[in-house]
Amino acid sequence: MVEDVDLDEPKAGEVLVKIGAAGVCRSDRHFMHGDANIALPAVLGHEGAGTVEKVGPGVTLTKPGDQVILSFVPACGRCKSCLEGNSNLCDLHMATGPFMLDGTTRLHKGGKDIHHMGKVACFAEYAVVPETGCIPTNSGISMDKAAMIGCCVPTGVGATMFSAKVQPGSTVAVVGCGGVGLNVIMGAKLLNASQIIAVDIRESQLEFAMKFGATHSVNAADRDPVAQVKELTGGRGADYTFEVFGSAETVKASYDMCAKSGTVTVVGIAPMGAEASINAVDLVRNEKTLRGTYYGSARGRTDMPTMVDLYLSGRLNLDDLVVRHYSLDQINEAYGDMDEGEVGRGAIMFN
Amino acid sequence: MVEDVDLDEPKAGEVLVKIGAAGVCRSDRHFMHGDANIALPAVLGHEGAGTVEKVGPGVTLTKPGDQVILSFVPACGRCKSCLEGNSNLCDLHMATGPFMLDGTTRLHKGGKDIHHMGKVACFAEYAVVPETGCIPTNSGISMDKAAMIGCCVPTGVGATMFSAKVQPGSTVAVVGCGGVGLNVIMGAKLLNASQIIAVDIRESQLEFAMKFGATHSVNAADRDPVAQVKELTGGRGADYTFEVFGSAETVKASYDMCAKSGTVTVVGIAPMGAEASINAVDLVRNEKTLRGTYYGSARGRTDMPTMVDLYLSGRLNLDDLVVRHYSLDQINEAYGDMDEGEVGRGAIMFN
Repeated sequence: MVEDVDLDEPKAGEVLVKIGAAGVCRSDRHFMHGDANIALPAVLGHEGAGTVEKVGPGVTLTKPGDQVILSFVPACGRCKSCLEGNSNLCDLHMATGPFMLDGTTRLHKGGKDIHHMGKVACFAEYAVVPETGCIPTNSGISMDKAAMIGCCVPTGVGATMFSAKVQPGSTVAVVGCGGVGLNVIMGAKLLNASQIIAVDIRESQLEFAMKFGATHSVNAADRDPVAQVKELTGGRGADYTFEVFGSAETVKASYDMCAKSGTVTVVGIAPMGAEASINAVDLVRNEKTLRGTYYGSARGRTDMPTMVDLYLSGRLNLDDLVVRHYSLDQINEAYGDMDEGEVGRGAIMFN
Repeated sequence: MVEDVDLDEPKAGEVLVKIGAAGVCRSDRHFMHGDANIALPAVLGHEGAGTVEKVGPGVTLTKPGDQVILSFVPACGRCKSCLEGNSNLCDLHMATGPFMLDGTTRLHKGGKDIHHMGKVACFAEYAVVPETGCIPTNSGISMDKAAMIGCCVPTGVGATMFSAKVQPGSTVAVVGCGGVGLNVIMGAKLLNASQIIAVDIRESQLEFAMKFGATHSVNAADRDPVAQVKELTGGRGADYTFEVFGSAETVKASYDMCAKSGTVTVVGIAPMGAEASINAVDLVRNEKTLRGTYYGSARGRTDMPTMVDLYLSGRLNLDDLVVRHYSLDQINEAYGDMDEGEVGRGAIMFN
């Protein structure tokens, strides 16, 4: 699986980054299995951090030597989505997918183009990325924590801060306690929710979730999780529920355990074509809101530095989150550990 | 169908109203057919206006002689929903359904209790209602227009103002152009949407919708309405879509024709048990919002007087909305005309 490929020089507005660390995230797995929308061959890895080695013509946002966090939605800053404050949905990025913003690749082998996952492709020693996908942080944060701020932290914490806007004193249920789910829990704690209910089917994940701020746990393998969450919330359901697994069934459960006039935030990416079933009468009579959030509705350039500050000031527990470290040639072992249900997040370390 | 029943005197906090007009709304039809959640026997009619005849002990919000609009969600003002500003979802009202707020009825026949639809029951010459369900308007508005402000106006206009909060210059699609749908169109016009696309399967409804502010029409009987709305909006879909028919299929269509980061507002009450199917991946990747709204998320006591002002100042076209008038003994004819697809709204007039 680890092999040498050719990497072009950075073109205008692009940057060559020496990768410091890359997170082991389930989204890469989806690409490996082909249940996502990019074609192979591709260099995977979309949660990363490193050091700028060289910049292409016209780059002004970073310079060689900068420690940078990589964003898998480099924003053009000119489209409708960007200009409405939704740079996480950049129209140009979405249109160019696993190619650079000009529609070509910098990765090749034997004359064939190779795709860049999320314009990051950080399961590699070096990557060429758009400058807007490089967020400088010369804060001295360790590379593995910086890498987490490239995906699971903004996705999870951002879902609570920027999408759901959890209110202090409210009740929260989080369905799925993997890397992103733990960050949703941290976000709910940061925003001072009074009750944070972790929902999963694995006891080990539920116990681990307590380290990050969960106040209650519900094992969905034991008994209907909707009934359990309703019991814990005095019959009303939770004010905010978060779906962080990615399936039609968990979207439905997250919807059903949500309180009257509550908000269901869907974070997990379900398999392509998954259709969630929503009770249309309950939706109206209880005025519920079902909203999807991508990348935690965070704007990388402004919100990733905020996440760094929240970590460095002790408000986000990323130290307990990253529990396993691997070298690049152990990448299959890393995904094997994830598949076996190991708690917390793994990181591939370079050098 | 028209028969004499016994009506008790108003109890504490209740009011006896002489009905002036009552709207002919499809929701009553649902109750007649049993696909809604109140048991018969019941006096139907939930969109009404009249004159206060007598007040029970302790009433302070209205007095004999007041012209009043009736709300079918009389709010307790003390529950979590009311205190959060969602008096349209009053917990006590929901818990007591077709009974008065104390859980008993004022309607009887031959010793048997009869339910009050929505605590209004205005298909009758007189009604006893909770005082918080009586909204005084001594504006001189005609009774038929006042009755409309009891249901279809706040439900439709409110959905645009209070739930979706339509922005000036945005694009709007309205699926279903019956009485409430026409009010959604009026709301979108009031809020200066740039494009208001009426969607229906009947050409007569689509033509009629133009009177209320629709700028385009889409006949869903001709060709896939999702494709048609996308074509009219430059491929993006509409920023705001409104489902105003009440079925799983139209919820799905309204969802599918909504733009990236857009909002789908579900207004229509689908048959009990209807489950709408939502693409879970699209929800996340395009950050769409699906929200139910009940009674237009309007607070009767403050928002109904606003609707009266908007009508009297020429900003809402209720004059073209009410096109047919009936006497109470013509009620079956009124519902027959509705079933036959007559455009606009009918009203039962009492002198």
